[in-house]
Amino acid sequence: MIKGLTLAGVGSIGSLEDFVVKSGANGFQAIDTSGGALRKLIEERGEAGAKSFLSENGIRIGSIGLSVEWRQSEEKFLETLTGLASDAEAAAKLGCSSCCTYILPSTDFKAAHHMTITTRRLRTCAQILGAYGIRLGLEFVGPHHLRTAWKHPFIWTMQETLDWIAAIGEPNVGLLLDAYHWYTSNGTVEELLALKPEQIVHVHINDAKPVPVEEALDNDRLYPGEGVIDLAAFLKAVSRIGYKGVVAQEILTPQAPSQSSEELLKRSADAFIKVYAAAGLE
Amino acid sequence: MIKGLTLAGVGSIGSLEDFVVKSGANGFQAIDTSGGALRKLIEERGEAGAKSFLSENGIRIGSIGLSVEWRQSEEKFLETLTGLASDAEAAAKLGCSSCCTYILPSTDFKAAHHMTITTRRLRTCAQILGAYGIRLGLEFVGPHHLRTAWKHPFIWTMQETLDWIAAIGEPNVGLLLDAYHWYTSNGTVEELLALKPEQIVHVHINDAKPVPVEEALDNDRLYPGEGVIDLAAFLKAVSRIGYKGVVAQEILTPQAPSQSSEELLKRSADAFIKVYAAAGLE
Amino acid sequence: MIKGLTLAGVGSIGSLEDFVVKSGANGFQAIDTSGGALRKLIEERGEAGAKSFLSENGIRIGSIGLSVEWRQSEEKFLETLTGLASDAEAAAKLGCSSCCTYILPSTDFKAAHHMTITTRRLRTCAQILGAYGIRLGLEFVGPHHLRTAWKHPFIWTMQETLDWIAAIGEPNVGLLLDAYHWYTSNGTVEELLALKPEQIVHVHINDAKPVPVEEALDNDRLYPGEGVIDLAAFLKAVSRIGYKGVVAQEILTPQAPSQSSEELLKRSADAFIKVYAAAGLE
Amino acid sequence: MIKGLTLAGVGSIGSLEDFVVKSGANGFQAIDTSGGALRKLIEERGEAGAKSFLSENGIRIGSIGLSVEWRQSEEKFLETLTGLASDAEAAAKLGCSSCCTYILPSTDFKAAHHMTITTRRLRTCAQILGAYGIRLGLEFVGPHHLRTAWKHPFIWTMQETLDWIAAIGEPNVGLLLDAYHWYTSNGTVEELLALKPEQIVHVHINDAKPVPVEEALDNDRLYPGEGVIDLAAFLKAVSRIGYKGVVAQEILTPQAPSQSSEELLKRSADAFIKVYAAAGLE
Repeated sequence: MIKGLTLAGVGSIGSLEDFVVKSGANGFQAIDTSGGALRKLIEERGEAGAKSFLSENGIRIGSIGLSVEWRQSEEKFLETLTGLASDAEAAAKLGCSSCCTYILPSTDFKAAHHMTITTRRLRTCAQILGAYGIRLGLEFVGPHHLRTAWKHPFIWTMQETLDWIAAIGEPNVGLLLDAYHWYTSNGTVEELLALKPEQIVHVHINDAKPVPVEEALDNDRLYPGEGVIDLAAFLKAVSRIGYKGVVAQEILTPQAPSQSSEELLKRSADAFIKVYAAAGLE
Repeated sequence: MIKGLTLAGVGSIGSLEDFVVKSGANGFQAIDTSGGALRKLIEERGEAGAKSFLSENGIRIGSIGLSVEWRQSEEKFLETLTGLASDAEAAAKLGCSSCCTYILPSTDFKAAHHMTITTRRLRTCAQILGAYGIRLGLEFVGPHHLRTAWKHPFIWTMQETLDWIAAIGEPNVGLLLDAYHWYTSNGTVEELLALKPEQIVHVHINDAKPVPVEEALDNDRLYPGEGVIDLAAFLKAVSRIGYKGVVAQEILTPQAPSQSSEELLKRSADAFIKVYAAAGLE
Repeated sequence: MIKGLTLAGVGSIGSLEDFVVKSGANGFQAIDTSGGALRKLIEERGEAGAKSFLSENGIRIGSIGLSVEWRQSEEKFLETLTGLASDAEAAAKLGCSSCCTYILPSTDFKAAHHMTITTRRLRTCAQILGAYGIRLGLEFVGPHHLRTAWKHPFIWTMQETLDWIAAIGEPNVGLLLDAYHWYTSNGTVEELLALKPEQIVHVHINDAKPVPVEEALDNDRLYPGEGVIDLAAFLKAVSRIGYKGVVAQEILTPQAPSQSSEELLKRSADAFIKVYAAAGLE
Repeated sequence: MIKGLTLAGVGSIGSLEDFVVKSGANGFQAIDTSGGALRKLIEERGEAGAKSFLSENGIRIGSIGLSVEWRQSEEKFLETLTGLASDAEAAAKLGCSSCCTYILPSTDFKAAHHMTITTRRLRTCAQILGAYGIRLGLEFVGPHHLRTAWKHPFIWTMQETLDWIAAIGEPNVGLLLDAYHWYTSNGTVEELLALKPEQIVHVHINDAKPVPVEEALDNDRLYPGEGVIDLAAFLKAVSRIGYKGVVAQEILTPQAPSQSSEELLKRSADAFIKVYAAAGLE
């Protein structure tokens, strides 16, 4: 499985190009970014130039974030939808085949009705992405405090998300599997082992503080191996079913980290080495 | 618009064949029944015989009920799904192009999750029906007491149902528009006028007691013209947008009616004459 | 049915704005244009300004052309697809709900294989358009000489096109019904009467020279009423099934017309009056 | 990869139950059969009894044949479609998740039009199968003589079939990859290595006589390892991409084989041992 980074956990790392260079220098093989950043990279360097820049640094694009606002008004949805094909085109040109978004576990809208509207909207997003060979990864969000952060409970487990994926009904939709959300939604190794590898679009890795699982905050994560999540079991299971894609670190914290980007990249690299070793992966 | 009957409101009318004969004799042009009853009719009379029996009595089949259990366990769903294609085939042979089901406005399942599962299941039903040229009509259910009859609110308005239809995403899904549910969900004439005729699969007509709308019980309906629903406005609007299909009476009552079928058919026929006249329809 | 114009047949009419002003001044109610032209109009006048400009001239947008290249390479398809959502957004803002493309009746690609690829591509186009409430109209092309203009026969009849629409499988795809193609594909009034109005996305009107139908050239059309097509029957049938949309004139000719735009607009207006009257329409 | 048998190549083996027992006794792990045979097995032994009968013999069901007639008239299609859900239900109960059909490489129907109709029909089949967790495998058919056996060329290569699968657009459709058809359509190892394992629903194995590939007849096959197909390369490639499903022998011959079933089973078992060894598989 490919070791990747998101911007969450690497401090003030600079431009996309800085991110690429420094990630590669620290032994990472992938980074996550936005479609807009990729479009800019191609504009500036040309498609061939952008590709060779990435490959010279040993970096591939793990995933881009879904830039469409699919949770609020129809107007906003339609307005932001206009850029998705260009995002997808840029990602495809650079060999990236994944675009991800997360699911808030509660909503101020009536839950069942909100589900009908968002099912339709995510299907449209998946259809556009699919034209370019890009898959859409849906990240269920486990922390308990978010289940009551808005008026009505929505969904937050892997099974619910798989059922949503079936409702969306497009071949290119799967899971963004985040270790923190797996842990906080009381996921099990058995559930992971029951997945087929093609059901996983992307993986996030991170760790949780030693508090009761009900109290783990979404925005208060640790680096892999520094907390209580059984990441060895998580990684081993994901690898065992045949997933060969990117595992990207994502460390959301209440304050910006005090360490420098250099220190954080080193810390992240060490974290990966530690948890991969614990999982018996090289 | 074609005057039709369901079994609800005609008493103990006997077999499907009795229902056909008596409905035709009382000036009705359509009846609603089940796919199973149509299969039996074809078995007994042959396709041509069944067709001529209907046409001799001036009766078409307005709609069949969806025989699939799509609200409970997956096992039950898959088991009952096996008969749907045969239902659809029988309906298509007899010129019926409509199959309907109703939506309970609350559920013991978690609402958003239940929506994902039922969206997938109804899509499958629509796909099978669509192969035979049959449309699936979804009936939203308005009475307020049913919104809390189970643990979690689901959906009960026309707009929510239209949004669900878009989420299901099949071309052959539309509304079963029931006057009682339109009334109890505080539907407006403007909402009806905003519909395109092809969005309506089937129409039910009935009336409500003069109680506050919040207290109108699903199971305590009156014959058309005997209550407080503005059926003239309802019918006029549905006709004005170009709907030309069946308007079938459905009178759910707490006890079986005390009148004979003959009396109830006469009462129903008079009711239609009255409300059609009030709407300026012939 | 709304009287509309395309650019084919009105000579060198100038800008989109000239086209709008002059069409309105000649009694037309709709014009066809491109999504790009609408985007430019909105950029220059703002959404509200563009709307009031159209309404002050009594003109609505009948349809925009599909700007996606769906018949050639995948690269070209993906590249041109990026602009479709913006086209659709502009059309939707200005109240246009139709986007059309035509089907060449032969192809240099292997026919069955080409059908698989174009089915997928047109489905993607329909899905994007559908998000904005825009329908996709497919125009079958009847002239016999085009059936052998490329190596392999493709499709050219209304029934084939309806079957393709079913294969595409999206609710918002229908026919662009062109009188010339109906005539040259030996279409019948019965076929038109068998349509439901929602199966028609857009209508083109024009006329054919008095040559054997097999010899009628795609690019050699007459103004409505000047030729041999039974436009009275065509219009009567389309109106009778309930179609209420735009009927746009499209006159393809071998050379640019020698008359001025003013003369051509007058000639077109007279042509509509004549054929509408023949069809018993006002 | 699981060693399987079809009835083609095992002689007069008797009932489904005989086929199961004898296949298991000869070291095979899977057999292909029909949905009807599985329904009968469940009727006679009950679901639990049928399952334990299979497992006692070390046999799973590799695939069932698609019992729907999707190539001819709409009437026949709709009639045969009624049984598909029951086939799928029986297969799912017994742990089978694959249903296959083959594509004739030419057709008497106009090719592009036939493609529209069969795309829609196979989509409906896939949708019904998908409800039960069954995948639909499409087998492209390579022999050159069949490309002109009917009036118009249809499709016969893997890439065309993949493009068709994309046009069908359901997540549960993939390839039935048959070594004979791979060979006769001039398939390459590179093409196999470019597949994702989930694109393969089922695999057939067999061999070809030492004639020019253009002259290899569909109906004149050899047992694996007895002919000229590079089955070592074929199996190695399919295994290398991660396919772990059934590889079923299918030997179509002009006459019924003269050997007994016992001899043919032994010959088949030896053939598998030989070609698996050549491919470096156990």
